[in-house]
Amino acid sequence: MTEHSLWRFSRAIHRAINERQPGDLETLIDDDVDWAIYGPIDMFPFLGARRGKAAVLEVIRRIAETVRVRRFDRESVMLGVDSAASMMRYSLTALDSHKPISVRLAHFAKFKADRLSSIRVLVDTFDLVEQVLGRPIHLPRIAP
Amino acid sequence: MTEHSLWRFSRAIHRAINERQPGDLETLIDDDVDWAIYGPIDMFPFLGARRGKAAVLEVIRRIAETVRVRRFDRESVMLGVDSAASMMRYSLTALDSHKPISVRLAHFAKFKADRLSSIRVLVDTFDLVEQVLGRPIHLPRIAP
Repeated sequence: MTEHSLWRFSRAIHRAINERQPGDLETLIDDDVDWAIYGPIDMFPFLGARRGKAAVLEVIRRIAETVRVRRFDRESVMLGVDSAASMMRYSLTALDSHKPISVRLAHFAKFKADRLSSIRVLVDTFDLVEQVLGRPIHLPRIAP
Repeated sequence: MTEHSLWRFSRAIHRAINERQPGDLETLIDDDVDWAIYGPIDMFPFLGARRGKAAVLEVIRRIAETVRVRRFDRESVMLGVDSAASMMRYSLTALDSHKPISVRLAHFAKFKADRLSSIRVLVDTFDLVEQVLGRPIHLPRIAP
């Protein structure tokens, strides 16, 4: 039984971010990849939708300029033949302020011939924004 | 082949919210269910972690008092034997203001004897908060 594409992709993306070595990642992304990380692009211009390998590698380069991954825990994972979904909790360090950032995300990924062909990433964005701002945003109580 | 527990659970939860008929849902939740919807509990007190069927039914009752589900699209889904994960986009109507709310979420669920035993729900919370506030929150641009 060969290793699932998710594990190779995971190692490669963390290496690209933490060591700024995108070589492995480059070989694991489909040329025509369909990519989206949902979130406030005004604050983080590297979020949002991208199409194609070059655009995705540029996103990863910018993420690598912004944060370092200190640790991650995969809280849930589901593997299909050519697909994978996880819920993950990341402990990051912001490179400018050296502040810790903790963020939870979920991804749904598809692979084609071992390469990432599509991914959608959802982030607990309000929690992320408050941490990066360094102060709570006042919210009215809405629901009963 | 019998129907996956996810589909039964999905129908029951939507019926509980839109028709305020929690009877079906009650039979599909494990007594000791482990439940969490991550998000700002100051604004929405029904978010957060809960344990046990009674606490979860109370959450659903409060959600049913707050919104109506207009439609939902399951953008990604993965099914295991006793597990399921989806990424979904909901079109809701706030019952007090009659305003439309659009929210994307991801869930990872586990079932035991056809009953929900555990679920974790992640929401694109910043987008949700801005819609409910009815105004954008100003964000500084952080990343390069």
